[in-house]
Amino acid sequence: MTTTEDPSADGVVPSRPLTIAQLAELAGVSTATVSKVVNGRSEVGPETRALIERLILEHGYRPQRRRARPAPLVELVFHALEGEYPTEIAKGVEQVAREHQLAMVLSELRHRHPPGKGWIEGVLSRRPTGVIAVFSSLTVAQRHQLTTRGIPLVLLDPTDDPAPQVPSVGASNWNGGLTATRHLLGLGHRRIAAITGPGYALAGRARLDGYRTALDMAGIPLDPELIGCGDFLVEGGLEQAERLLRLPEPPTAVFASNDGQATGVYRAAHQLGLRIPGDLSVVGFDDLPAARWMNPPLTTVHQPLTEMAAAAAGMLLKLAQGEPLAQHRVELGTELIIRGSTARAAN
Amino acid sequence: MTTTEDPSADGVVPSRPLTIAQLAELAGVSTATVSKVVNGRSEVGPETRALIERLILEHGYRPQRRRARPAPLVELVFHALEGEYPTEIAKGVEQVAREHQLAMVLSELRHRHPPGKGWIEGVLSRRPTGVIAVFSSLTVAQRHQLTTRGIPLVLLDPTDDPAPQVPSVGASNWNGGLTATRHLLGLGHRRIAAITGPGYALAGRARLDGYRTALDMAGIPLDPELIGCGDFLVEGGLEQAERLLRLPEPPTAVFASNDGQATGVYRAAHQLGLRIPGDLSVVGFDDLPAARWMNPPLTTVHQPLTEMAAAAAGMLLKLAQGEPLAQHRVELGTELIIRGSTARAAN
Repeated sequence: MTTTEDPSADGVVPSRPLTIAQLAELAGVSTATVSKVVNGRSEVGPETRALIERLILEHGYRPQRRRARPAPLVELVFHALEGEYPTEIAKGVEQVAREHQLAMVLSELRHRHPPGKGWIEGVLSRRPTGVIAVFSSLTVAQRHQLTTRGIPLVLLDPTDDPAPQVPSVGASNWNGGLTATRHLLGLGHRRIAAITGPGYALAGRARLDGYRTALDMAGIPLDPELIGCGDFLVEGGLEQAERLLRLPEPPTAVFASNDGQATGVYRAAHQLGLRIPGDLSVVGFDDLPAARWMNPPLTTVHQPLTEMAAAAAGMLLKLAQGEPLAQHRVELGTELIIRGSTARAAN
Repeated sequence: MTTTEDPSADGVVPSRPLTIAQLAELAGVSTATVSKVVNGRSEVGPETRALIERLILEHGYRPQRRRARPAPLVELVFHALEGEYPTEIAKGVEQVAREHQLAMVLSELRHRHPPGKGWIEGVLSRRPTGVIAVFSSLTVAQRHQLTTRGIPLVLLDPTDDPAPQVPSVGASNWNGGLTATRHLLGLGHRRIAAITGPGYALAGRARLDGYRTALDMAGIPLDPELIGCGDFLVEGGLEQAERLLRLPEPPTAVFASNDGQATGVYRAAHQLGLRIPGDLSVVGFDDLPAARWMNPPLTTVHQPLTEMAAAAAGMLLKLAQGEPLAQHRVELGTELIIRGSTARAAN
C-alpha cells in the first residue's frame, strides 16, 4: 500500500516519504531522536519534536523495513465520559474487538476539541491496530501523525464534516429530524419548537434541517423565535425550554434534538406545572436506555449507537488488514420510537 | 517479593514454585507449551491447558529470570456495560492511569459471574500492569492465574466478601442505608419499604441491614411484607414497587437501594397516579448524574464512584511497584443528598 492510496490520509499527501535517516539529516538530529518521535516516546524536547513532526508532515515518513505488527489494541477515544452514550458505544466496539482477539483502550479528551497534547503521543507509543474517535475532530496534523505511522482512523458520530478520505460512521440525522417533526405535525401540532445542539456539531444541524424541511413541506413558515440554541446537555434543554414555554404564544410541541435536552424540557414543564403530553408534546433523539424510563416514556428518534460503534470497529479492522472499504462514509438508519410523550394537539 | 508475601494471593499459596522446565516435565509437555499457557496464548488445547493451570495452581510458577516489565496498561473489567455506572467508574480509573502514562483497557463480562473462559487468557497475553474488577468476583483459580503471573488485582465495589488478602475498594453501604432510613424516619414515616439488590450482592445486603438497624433503633418492628427483593435494575424496582403500593396498608416511603430501582418506583407511582413526594417519599442509592434530573429530583445516597475508581487505580499502581498497601480494604464514605423526592409523612 503506497501512501497516496492510504484511505485515511486527507489532502496533503507527500509524494516521496523520507526514511528515518533522511529525516534525521534534514532535522540535524540523531536517528534515535527521530525514531522516538515516530513512536511517541516522551524523551524528546517539544521544539525538536515539533520540528520533526513538521518534516514528517511535509515529506512523509517511510519505515525502513516492513512495519512490525501493530499491538492487538483498538483505541476508542471520547470527547467526554458522561452519561449513557459512552457505554452504548463502548459496548459495540468491545464486542467486535473481542471477536478479533483485540483489547479496547478507552480514553477521554475532557471536552477538548481537538484532543490535547499528550494524547497522540500515548497512541503512537502503543502502536494500536487502529483508532476510533467519537464525536471529535482530530486536527489535520494529528490525523497525519496516525497516517504516517500506518495507524488507521475511523470517526464515529463526527461533529465536523470529515474529509472525504477519512472513514466515518454516523446516523441519518436529517431523516431523524424530518420524521420527528412529521410525527408532531401528524398529531396536529403547528407551533413546534426545536432545541438544537451546539453550532459546531453537524449532527445537530442536520436534525434541525430535517425539522425545517418538514415544516416547509407542511406549509408552515419557520418562526425563528421557536428555535433554541442548545448544547446537547440537560442544562441547555432546560434553559431553552424555560424561554420557549414563557413566550406569549408558546409552542405546543418541542423537538429536543437529543434525549439529554428532552430531559431538560421535562424539568421545565414540571416546574411550570405543564403536563406531558397533555399540555406539551416532546420528542428526543438518541433513544438511550433511560428514555423509556422517563415519565412519561419519551418518544424519541432511535440512533443505533452500539451498531454504529460495531460498524466503525469493522471498518477499522478492514483498514488494518489493508483491505479496501466499500464506502468511506456509512450512515445507519434512525427510527422514530413512539412512546408516551407525544399526543394530539389540543384545539 | 516472595510468593507468600504476595498480597493478592488468597489462601492456597504454594511454598516452592516451579520453573517452566519443571512444570513441563511434570506435565509431560514441552517448555514452549507451558510458556504459552503462562502467557495466555491460544495455541494450546483445553485439556493440556487445564492440566498446566492445575499444576501452576498446586505448585506455583517461578519465572526463570526477572519478569519483563509489564505493559503500560491497566485492565478495567465490568460485569456489564449498562447505564451511567460504568462511565463514572471509567472516568476515575482513566484519570489516574493517564497521570501515570498508562492506557486503560476496558472489557465487559456480559453478566457472567465469574468472568467466562477466554477473558483471562486475553489478560495474561497482554501482561498488564494490573487488573481492576468491578462488581465481579473472579474465581480462586483466576485470581491465582493473575497472582502466579505477578499481575496485581484490585476489586472495586465487590459483590462478594473478598478474601482478606485481596485488595478492594467499596463504599460505606451500611451507613448509607442507615442514613437513608433515618432521614425517612425523621420525616415522620413509619411504614417504610425497602427494595434490595440481588441476594448475592453484599453491597445491597449491607444497605438493607442499615435500614433494619435504623428501624430497630426507632423501635419500629420490621414488617417482612415491606421488603422487596430487587435486582438493582429498573425493572426489579418497578415490579416490587407495584406490589408494595398495592398492599392493603401500603408504605408511605421506599428506600430503593439504588437509583435504577428508584426509577422503577417512580414509574410505579406514576402509573398508579401517586405523587412523589406528596403521596410517597423515595430514596435512592448511588447518586448517578441522572438522579438530579428525575422529576422530582431524587433524594439519594451519594456513592463516590469516580473517587472509588481512582482509589482502586492508586492501590493497583502501588502493588505494581511492589509497595505495601496501608490497608487492603478501603471504604469511602457515602453521603445523603436531599432533593425533592422526600417529604413529611401525611398524617
